[in-house]
Amino acid sequence: MNRDYGAVLALSGGVGGAKLALGLADALPPGQLHVTVNTGDDFEHLGLYISPDIDTLLYTLSGQSNQTLGWGLAGETWNTMDALQRLGGETWFRLGDRDMATHLWRTQALQTGRSLSEITSDLGKRWDVRSHVYPMSDDRVRTMVLSGEHRLPFQQYFVRDRCEPPVSGFSFEGVSAARPNRKVMTLLQDAAFSTVVICPSNPFVSVDPILQVPGLWLALRDNTAPVVLVSPIVAGQAIKGPTAKMMAELQVPVTALGVAQHYIVRYPGMVDYFVIDESDAKLAPQISELGLRVVIGSTVMTSREDKQQLAHLCLQTGSAGPR
Amino acid sequence: MNRDYGAVLALSGGVGGAKLALGLADALPPGQLHVTVNTGDDFEHLGLYISPDIDTLLYTLSGQSNQTLGWGLAGETWNTMDALQRLGGETWFRLGDRDMATHLWRTQALQTGRSLSEITSDLGKRWDVRSHVYPMSDDRVRTMVLSGEHRLPFQQYFVRDRCEPPVSGFSFEGVSAARPNRKVMTLLQDAAFSTVVICPSNPFVSVDPILQVPGLWLALRDNTAPVVLVSPIVAGQAIKGPTAKMMAELQVPVTALGVAQHYIVRYPGMVDYFVIDESDAKLAPQISELGLRVVIGSTVMTSREDKQQLAHLCLQTGSAGPR
Repeated sequence: MNRDYGAVLALSGGVGGAKLALGLADALPPGQLHVTVNTGDDFEHLGLYISPDIDTLLYTLSGQSNQTLGWGLAGETWNTMDALQRLGGETWFRLGDRDMATHLWRTQALQTGRSLSEITSDLGKRWDVRSHVYPMSDDRVRTMVLSGEHRLPFQQYFVRDRCEPPVSGFSFEGVSAARPNRKVMTLLQDAAFSTVVICPSNPFVSVDPILQVPGLWLALRDNTAPVVLVSPIVAGQAIKGPTAKMMAELQVPVTALGVAQHYIVRYPGMVDYFVIDESDAKLAPQISELGLRVVIGSTVMTSREDKQQLAHLCLQTGSAGPR
Repeated sequence: MNRDYGAVLALSGGVGGAKLALGLADALPPGQLHVTVNTGDDFEHLGLYISPDIDTLLYTLSGQSNQTLGWGLAGETWNTMDALQRLGGETWFRLGDRDMATHLWRTQALQTGRSLSEITSDLGKRWDVRSHVYPMSDDRVRTMVLSGEHRLPFQQYFVRDRCEPPVSGFSFEGVSAARPNRKVMTLLQDAAFSTVVICPSNPFVSVDPILQVPGLWLALRDNTAPVVLVSPIVAGQAIKGPTAKMMAELQVPVTALGVAQHYIVRYPGMVDYFVIDESDAKLAPQISELGLRVVIGSTVMTSREDKQQLAHLCLQTGSAGPR
């Protein structure tokens, strides 16, 4: 099953992206999957440095993720949150007791001067993750959601306000001064990747922050590895999260075509293949007209097999076709 | 049972002192007990500000203390510590999941610029503590245990090293610049207390840090309220903790007499009454010769009734006798 596709780079946000990353990890030999993860969602909360997307990737790839909740750790308990609630503390961002150890450990490691990249790599080793997980940057980037005259830090919009405020745009504070992860850039320069997969994460708040770290999207465009984008929109709906709601509020067609247009306008020449769901097959001609090669498959990942099948489709697409 | 003794000030370290403080709280009408607590044991750990003695007082007085462990919260769980241990993090200081909320809440409150006094008062209110608990100072004082050429931060000596290193002395970093709790000083200046009780806490690392905050012991000496000291040594042994071991290492007689000498030499004229255990009655003449009025009672506090009885003995001593 683990055909040697060579090294593969995936770009991922949180839960949706982690599903495909898990499929890719299953489909590749150990050590061949490299994942660059959004850190625009990172924030400081209760004195702790929290990296929600990195944790989702690490928990998922190490088999520790909570299948029932869809986020966090399996077998989690909430005694700290319950006690904090009785104290009238801030509990809108639910930190489980086991999850808390990750944040304490990382926060302390950052305070000793270690980089987020080193810390992420170290966490991966301690949890026997056999893929490489990288923060998109060790520099501070903070996604702000613009809603009319308001600027909401991402987690306040996403968790505290449950994605309710209508979105008028986004700002990635610090991104223009951020340096992309050095290891990823070196591997790109060495043409080390056979395929680049953009996971079906939210284009606006998960993938855009990664691609807007200076140098990264141009390196992907100019690289020999085909870039395979998987649509986060299936039959006009997002599998998870506010992608569809955001697209509607931004007056973008809530379809795979709308997703394609977003990437083509912002990152011209970067995406080679666009994987859309069978239910969207009718959009293929219009997407092809935009200059993307369309691949039709089953993109809804419920079971582990679904994830592996979609992963194989992406890998076959990248390895078989021309750039 | 709650005879009106007027307002009472107690000086306390952690577990041993908190037992008598609970007895005093039971014996007095709500709001009449004021407790000044050692903060020389406070430390920063895992990015959290931890006040072990204040927490012991608050947990004990709010009925939340863990009777089985003898420290921490009742019904505690340890899932964060277990997860942190798997990560190879520092777990020598065991922070329970519920206890963690206290540290997160306090650390965050300190970061917003609130004082430890305000925070302690606020925690007391949230937990329905009907006594007043004060840190000895809002300024940073750190007890260091001297062991030969080594200087050990108190918690490293006490918890990590299990009090094993032989003690040659102590240093209270920052104490000479620390200001005593303002509320306590104001109440002392207003002669508001009928009695001052020095709880049977460790003289060297629990009571000395409090009394060495500039101005405090002289205010106690010059106050009209009798100062009643309860011996932490009973029949040559400490009920809890390293008091007896420290006295032996410091070449001080491990008896109530040794305790009396310690206070008389360091704080001449401050202590009026010295409560010793019945089992030490034979030491009464020698202690009297040092100029202290000896009160003999049952000082071993096992049950809630023991605590209340010792509290009543202290209160009766303070209210009945002359200064």
